[in-house]
Amino acid sequence: MTKRRIALISTGGTIEKTYDERSGGLANHISVLDLMLASLELRGVDLQRVALMNKDSLDMNDDDHTLIAETAARLARETAGVVVVHGTDRLAASGDRLVEIAGTPASPVVFTGAMRPYELRSTDALQNLIEALLAVQILAPGVYVAMHNQVLQFPGVIKDKLAGTFVKEPPR
Amino acid sequence: MTKRRIALISTGGTIEKTYDERSGGLANHISVLDLMLASLELRGVDLQRVALMNKDSLDMNDDDHTLIAETAARLARETAGVVVVHGTDRLAASGDRLVEIAGTPASPVVFTGAMRPYELRSTDALQNLIEALLAVQILAPGVYVAMHNQVLQFPGVIKDKLAGTFVKEPPR
Amino acid sequence: MTKRRIALISTGGTIEKTYDERSGGLANHISVLDLMLASLELRGVDLQRVALMNKDSLDMNDDDHTLIAETAARLARETAGVVVVHGTDRLAASGDRLVEIAGTPASPVVFTGAMRPYELRSTDALQNLIEALLAVQILAPGVYVAMHNQVLQFPGVIKDKLAGTFVKEPPR
Amino acid sequence: MTKRRIALISTGGTIEKTYDERSGGLANHISVLDLMLASLELRGVDLQRVALMNKDSLDMNDDDHTLIAETAARLARETAGVVVVHGTDRLAASGDRLVEIAGTPASPVVFTGAMRPYELRSTDALQNLIEALLAVQILAPGVYVAMHNQVLQFPGVIKDKLAGTFVKEPPR
Repeated sequence: MTKRRIALISTGGTIEKTYDERSGGLANHISVLDLMLASLELRGVDLQRVALMNKDSLDMNDDDHTLIAETAARLARETAGVVVVHGTDRLAASGDRLVEIAGTPASPVVFTGAMRPYELRSTDALQNLIEALLAVQILAPGVYVAMHNQVLQFPGVIKDKLAGTFVKEPPR
Repeated sequence: MTKRRIALISTGGTIEKTYDERSGGLANHISVLDLMLASLELRGVDLQRVALMNKDSLDMNDDDHTLIAETAARLARETAGVVVVHGTDRLAASGDRLVEIAGTPASPVVFTGAMRPYELRSTDALQNLIEALLAVQILAPGVYVAMHNQVLQFPGVIKDKLAGTFVKEPPR
Repeated sequence: MTKRRIALISTGGTIEKTYDERSGGLANHISVLDLMLASLELRGVDLQRVALMNKDSLDMNDDDHTLIAETAARLARETAGVVVVHGTDRLAASGDRLVEIAGTPASPVVFTGAMRPYELRSTDALQNLIEALLAVQILAPGVYVAMHNQVLQFPGVIKDKLAGTFVKEPPR
Repeated sequence: MTKRRIALISTGGTIEKTYDERSGGLANHISVLDLMLASLELRGVDLQRVALMNKDSLDMNDDDHTLIAETAARLARETAGVVVVHGTDRLAASGDRLVEIAGTPASPVVFTGAMRPYELRSTDALQNLIEALLAVQILAPGVYVAMHNQVLQFPGVIKDKLAGTFVKEPPR
């Protein structure tokens, strides 16, 4: 079995937040993705890590979304697929930008994130990362979010803040 | 978003083993699948639980494999997909039997299991269950095993005991 | 073996903080003490739960310290010992107040808390609670803090913020 | 605060059992004590590790009990206290032997163990180790078991197999 070469772009967000004892708060200081990856058995993908930024997505601006989209589009040409770890609040903005720029990328690009940081005892971070790392191997080229046991295709994906997850926008 | 109706057949195996304080050993007594499912956010599937048997797969005989295959084939006609939780030692026998009986089932049937019980602090059980519950939604009809970040299609799947995972049989 | 009747006073603090998905922060909303207690085997103590307040100790005022001290002094007369779960920032103020009011209480009063909430994957909360619930059974009457594998007796206990733990004040 | 020098004797037992994927069983292969210790904040004790043996206590013979008791008695003279990690099935035999040999040792000797290995998601191993490492600092010289939130003094301690814990033998 040859492993697929997959790019894993980290941008920060809740999934990577760590606890600061002095301030008593959670912030994006250190990437915890390596810890999460080390806890998994990854026999399908050969990961190329790309630490693009480490931001709470609420702090992202337009240039950040463009940088993320352009990086994903480029890596989709160079690899068999791309996973993007992203804060959920502005995840859909980066996904939409990628569709604007690249239409259908050369290989599948799968966004994921978390509502509760990996540092918490009860978290959706591992589930979502596992789903993205599997989905990227079997989906057709396109832009997706994989999270909470579902895969949704862009465009038309929005965050349902009340439900704390992503949904497809109802057709107008 | 309408959830897909998916059947989840449990048959036992390492993934469900629990610890017995008196004997100091691990055995298939109680299904821990409910505990695992409760720890996940399942927004894609609506599960129909089918507790078929609770056996270490080393104790399965030919009739067991046939029963598992026939049950999966029938449920594949009635639902949008089937996940089968199975001991890894004899998982391939049940998968092969299903291909013999049903060829390509009416909807995807995804087998999964674990090398280390969910009861352990370090386990592959959750990862594998998460992968099966996502893969069953996006694969084409067929018989598969999803585990350790990869999806393999039957026939021609065997357990690599040394590596502790499943691989495709080399073509002869 | 007869269990000792021990009062467990909860006042809030980091140990009990929970995560709020909407705000992305940690706050004192629900007591998680019951979850922690349920994970332990408690064959020495018979607990009388007293939910006195649920405050970040930085928000405690003088009346709060007096209320905590008076409640602990009273319960020390009625039971075989008292454990007080308290925010670490102002824990020493409540301990000092208790010594002022009660001198040596009728039974041991053991304060404890945590630098990292129980909700985190890596936390000192369980260790500290386990230590307090054991120490209260074997210490002589007095006022103590039990945390991080040590027991210190009041008065003269202060928080070392840099080290993130409690120490004895050097004699002047 | 000067840390107390404490000897930590490991002898094996359930607390240290690890899972073997190939055989699907639990055995005493590698000491997991280091992992447990690394997860704790130990500000009271300065540990001197003594890896005496690594045995399921059901496999211990008379010579093993004597060796454990003699080693504990000697280390009790050289340090401020001794913790002995021991399989629960034969723990009382080693404790009784120590009382026979040493009467009241020069410093407190605290035995501990576990009914469920540390490797399990739900385990009493950490609780018991935390209790022993605290109790050894505050108890008077003597021979004890600390486990499940209680401290019992030898002689007269027996394992209650039905309850899965230690109790004091009823006086005759």
